[in-house]
Amino acid sequence: MSVVMNDLGIVRRNIKRADRTATENLSRFGVATVHEAMGRVGLMQHYMRPIYTGAQMCGTAVTVLLQPGDNWMMHVAAEQIQPGDVVVAACTVENTDGFFGDLLATSYRARGANGLIVDGGVRDVADLTDMKFPVFSRAISARGTVKATLGSVNIPVVCAGAIVNRGDVILADMDGVVVIPAPLAQQAADAAEAREANEADKRERLASGMLGLDMYKMREPLAAAGLKYID
Amino acid sequence: MSVVMNDLGIVRRNIKRADRTATENLSRFGVATVHEAMGRVGLMQHYMRPIYTGAQMCGTAVTVLLQPGDNWMMHVAAEQIQPGDVVVAACTVENTDGFFGDLLATSYRARGANGLIVDGGVRDVADLTDMKFPVFSRAISARGTVKATLGSVNIPVVCAGAIVNRGDVILADMDGVVVIPAPLAQQAADAAEAREANEADKRERLASGMLGLDMYKMREPLAAAGLKYID
Amino acid sequence: MSVVMNDLGIVRRNIKRADRTATENLSRFGVATVHEAMGRVGLMQHYMRPIYTGAQMCGTAVTVLLQPGDNWMMHVAAEQIQPGDVVVAACTVENTDGFFGDLLATSYRARGANGLIVDGGVRDVADLTDMKFPVFSRAISARGTVKATLGSVNIPVVCAGAIVNRGDVILADMDGVVVIPAPLAQQAADAAEAREANEADKRERLASGMLGLDMYKMREPLAAAGLKYID
Amino acid sequence: MSVVMNDLGIVRRNIKRADRTATENLSRFGVATVHEAMGRVGLMQHYMRPIYTGAQMCGTAVTVLLQPGDNWMMHVAAEQIQPGDVVVAACTVENTDGFFGDLLATSYRARGANGLIVDGGVRDVADLTDMKFPVFSRAISARGTVKATLGSVNIPVVCAGAIVNRGDVILADMDGVVVIPAPLAQQAADAAEAREANEADKRERLASGMLGLDMYKMREPLAAAGLKYID
Amino acid sequence: MSVVMNDLGIVRRNIKRADRTATENLSRFGVATVHEAMGRVGLMQHYMRPIYTGAQMCGTAVTVLLQPGDNWMMHVAAEQIQPGDVVVAACTVENTDGFFGDLLATSYRARGANGLIVDGGVRDVADLTDMKFPVFSRAISARGTVKATLGSVNIPVVCAGAIVNRGDVILADMDGVVVIPAPLAQQAADAAEAREANEADKRERLASGMLGLDMYKMREPLAAAGLKYID
Amino acid sequence: MSVVMNDLGIVRRNIKRADRTATENLSRFGVATVHEAMGRVGLMQHYMRPIYTGAQMCGTAVTVLLQPGDNWMMHVAAEQIQPGDVVVAACTVENTDGFFGDLLATSYRARGANGLIVDGGVRDVADLTDMKFPVFSRAISARGTVKATLGSVNIPVVCAGAIVNRGDVILADMDGVVVIPAPLAQQAADAAEAREANEADKRERLASGMLGLDMYKMREPLAAAGLKYID
Repeated sequence: MSVVMNDLGIVRRNIKRADRTATENLSRFGVATVHEAMGRVGLMQHYMRPIYTGAQMCGTAVTVLLQPGDNWMMHVAAEQIQPGDVVVAACTVENTDGFFGDLLATSYRARGANGLIVDGGVRDVADLTDMKFPVFSRAISARGTVKATLGSVNIPVVCAGAIVNRGDVILADMDGVVVIPAPLAQQAADAAEAREANEADKRERLASGMLGLDMYKMREPLAAAGLKYID
Repeated sequence: MSVVMNDLGIVRRNIKRADRTATENLSRFGVATVHEAMGRVGLMQHYMRPIYTGAQMCGTAVTVLLQPGDNWMMHVAAEQIQPGDVVVAACTVENTDGFFGDLLATSYRARGANGLIVDGGVRDVADLTDMKFPVFSRAISARGTVKATLGSVNIPVVCAGAIVNRGDVILADMDGVVVIPAPLAQQAADAAEAREANEADKRERLASGMLGLDMYKMREPLAAAGLKYID
Repeated sequence: MSVVMNDLGIVRRNIKRADRTATENLSRFGVATVHEAMGRVGLMQHYMRPIYTGAQMCGTAVTVLLQPGDNWMMHVAAEQIQPGDVVVAACTVENTDGFFGDLLATSYRARGANGLIVDGGVRDVADLTDMKFPVFSRAISARGTVKATLGSVNIPVVCAGAIVNRGDVILADMDGVVVIPAPLAQQAADAAEAREANEADKRERLASGMLGLDMYKMREPLAAAGLKYID
Repeated sequence: MSVVMNDLGIVRRNIKRADRTATENLSRFGVATVHEAMGRVGLMQHYMRPIYTGAQMCGTAVTVLLQPGDNWMMHVAAEQIQPGDVVVAACTVENTDGFFGDLLATSYRARGANGLIVDGGVRDVADLTDMKFPVFSRAISARGTVKATLGSVNIPVVCAGAIVNRGDVILADMDGVVVIPAPLAQQAADAAEAREANEADKRERLASGMLGLDMYKMREPLAAAGLKYID
Repeated sequence: MSVVMNDLGIVRRNIKRADRTATENLSRFGVATVHEAMGRVGLMQHYMRPIYTGAQMCGTAVTVLLQPGDNWMMHVAAEQIQPGDVVVAACTVENTDGFFGDLLATSYRARGANGLIVDGGVRDVADLTDMKFPVFSRAISARGTVKATLGSVNIPVVCAGAIVNRGDVILADMDGVVVIPAPLAQQAADAAEAREANEADKRERLASGMLGLDMYKMREPLAAAGLKYID
Repeated sequence: MSVVMNDLGIVRRNIKRADRTATENLSRFGVATVHEAMGRVGLMQHYMRPIYTGAQMCGTAVTVLLQPGDNWMMHVAAEQIQPGDVVVAACTVENTDGFFGDLLATSYRARGANGLIVDGGVRDVADLTDMKFPVFSRAISARGTVKATLGSVNIPVVCAGAIVNRGDVILADMDGVVVIPAPLAQQAADAAEAREANEADKRERLASGMLGLDMYKMREPLAAAGLKYID
């Protein structure tokens, strides 16, 4: 079978990354804000959790496709990392093995990576926490892996339910992980800024006791939908 | 279909809440103690977890029934909150969307709410943690919701496996969430107090090396049940 | 039915524990290191999580087989604890009830236990955290249990997917829980030491920017496996 | 603790059942139809599945609250069965043990039961299939149970997420299980009939190639919601 | 936000489908064969199961993105179906509601659809079985849906972990569901044919008692990997 | 690391199997009966399901330890099969890949195997059903595997929560899978026979309307436990 057909055993180099300024602009917002600003799309599934409280990251994606129980491609990916990248590792099947630990984190950091997103397991979490190397994963697991079967680097992957292309912006915080397609990075940053512009005002009004029912003018549509109040 | 039949699209106002003193009395105990004191009933399922370490709350229930992916009723519920209430939100099906964030928390707090129990997702958890607004939820998720379909407020709901009626006492701590029916609030507080009365003494004896086998006089029933010691 | 046949209702006393020095040697290593050093075996499933950040323990196993919703054997086990032991509790079926709380922890600590591994639920986690009594469990749950049906103490159990025999060494940290068969304790400690010996050197080289691809000499086997680079 | 408080250890006799004619009327409809006719409420969670293809039942509920790993109350319930009843068994926690087998089925059938709904496990499924005794359950499991701890019969229970009161109508088919509150039985049957009345006509029109878009007049609201067609 | 950014609220018409002959060629093979022939890629997750034994389908994809609890887009999709299509419905979040039943199946069949793949729930399964309308789904559920929020038709979707583009070939049988990108359809069919060519011969040799160890010449690589035989 | 330490990469030949007559005796009973007769032990977890209705098997275990995504050892195991054996395959971690299909089934049958128990996935289920080759598995999945990493054959394994030693009797039917240790095979068969001896009598009495409450003399212990009847 041709490589084109199965996309396995490929490493794409010289990838095009999202605009650096747009990426920096996006890094100032929260995941929930950007996700909403994009029209409620692009989120990974909620089981992706940070390994320590307060973990967050923003960067451009180097994608990895792993085989279950095998972290060979994690090493291959290291060479493709450029400063400001985030490695996004998917697996061909559900697997929670510990694909990544403190040695790889040391290497990734030396290459300039801002963090790791892995739809699998991670280990050495105490060390990674000490290093403040942010990882969002499906699981924490000490289980080791082999280096026997090829996957790929920088092909399109489905990671925790989201499509990730090389160079996309990855934003992660305590609320989860969102993928912003590279061509839309600045547009998403602008939309996030617009969305956040009036949040302070809303917060103040709600804090003063005003109801969302009134602030958002919901009473009429609720009545139209048939809402009934009973005393 | 009549409203009576499906209970959807209803907001009950002027609800009767559990006695305030009884509620305060209950707030002095842990969830495990009250659950045991009530005869081992009333717990929500264990997947309901606090969004930050140390979160706890006690208050009277304002119930909400949500539709999946829709938080319209969260806004309707805000108006029904009185100081000392806890909002208890169930969903018509399993759903982990982020029904609640920092703006709603600001509004709920302004209304006097002591916290939120939601059998769904919550977001802005870093902000909610800073606010010390306690939330116990099934999931953390940045995913946004729409405002399109009616649910209800202050109807009986099944939240994480437990029946909750408007006005019931809700007690939550690191061990989970327990529901105390409003008419039984003082009785439960008394039972919890009686249960806790001799815990200090038990703790001291166990700390001194005494065995539960002897303190609880278990040796005879164990032998009667057929327990065999083999050297 | 004979006791031999079903192994229920038995307590083995005077068990043989792993060598104390070997156990102490093992306590200096992490779970991931020991698991790898043993040839990637012996791990419990990854759902076993510590009840507080930083929990860790090492000790010799006193095993318990529980019935669902019943913690009678937890009390029976207390008497078999010797200083340096870790109690490992399995259940005959999946069950998340709160089999263990602060009173039992007080008793276990008085007996010298180093911690608890339970493939079920635990409660009073705020108190246990204050006590710094480490517990690794499948769940946190306030739900109480009865004392009605016999299990066993110090029989072989399957706990979270791992076979545990009385006296085996149990090592647990933020990465999970690993079981080291008693006869292999020193051998495992030696292997862990050998494995860790050159980690500092590897870490330094990776931190300096050297790639794992080169350090582990992976380029040739990757090419042999068919890896293709595309610009 | 009083019995009123914990509702455990109670058997209610002489219960009031839903009207027999209304129950028979309901039995002519499918679960999906009745659920919709009631306003999309009353369904148990979808994990409740029939033990054989084609299983279905309709009857009035005798409710049972079980303890995990304990089927004592299944025997207590048998005495409360009247012809046309369906036994609905909930458990105090998630549990998949085999609470029910061919001997109990023989007894239930002799008492006139139409089937069993159990939020737990069932066994002897080959025999139950031969007997054509319909069971809808969370799991199939050979694991046996003890008879040691009290639950209750004919108290309100939460079974697979639905509130069931003694005497309610239970309707189950390949699509799932729905609970119709006894006082609403005839109203629900009427609503189901009305709903089904024009289904044949709809089916015919759709079969002839007419689109739901036109039959339900959806084009305008879709356009109003912003739907865009791109060629 | 622009439509390009969020891809919600779009219907693409006049889509390009995989070559008809290649699609027919693929329909002669099993899912496992095609998946292997493509290099072990393209499978949906294994939780996608047929609603009746023996269900199978092959066709070109019309994709649908659903909102949780909302099947509006299922009606919009109907108009885009051409004979030989398979509708592939993903949902923006995990949801098991019954998005599809016998009326929609009647309409889809009238339009020429070969079946439905839905990462959600389906109902009226007894009727669908009678109709022999094949559906592969995440769940069976009677729960009804609303028609309130836009999704899209014929945009790229992630369905049960697999990327599906409009016009791709979808092949489903008792082993699961595989997606063959439209441009690779004939290449995949050829590879499947080549793979199957020597299966009959292999089957015969294995049936005669020959070992795979010898037929596949595994003994040498196993020894090289360190396999040891112990008597 | 020594082979003794990690047990990986080993094949044990010339294993001792359970007595053939005892195995045949056990084959006449159901899984639930034997499990109960042994004292309610030895069951695999309930997620192990047959791939077709009516599947059942009994035989002596050849055990296999698989690596995730790798079925190399399935081929190694084939050579160790003797007529009347059942292959029991565990995996080092949770994995649902399709480790087994019709070619391996052809080979296993040629060697005399009675079936397969696999705590993983299986494929070609339509063919296996036609062959009436019984398989009990965690999942059905078309996903293919590689042949790259060693596991072992005929070492002790934990399969779906149960310890299985080479030569143990494996009994499987629609209710699940039970493991009978080889040395206890005849004892278990005798106990099963004793248990079944009076089942026919019990069934007859229950069919005639007698209550289990009376047949098992439960009324007194229920009253002693505090059961209360309320009219």
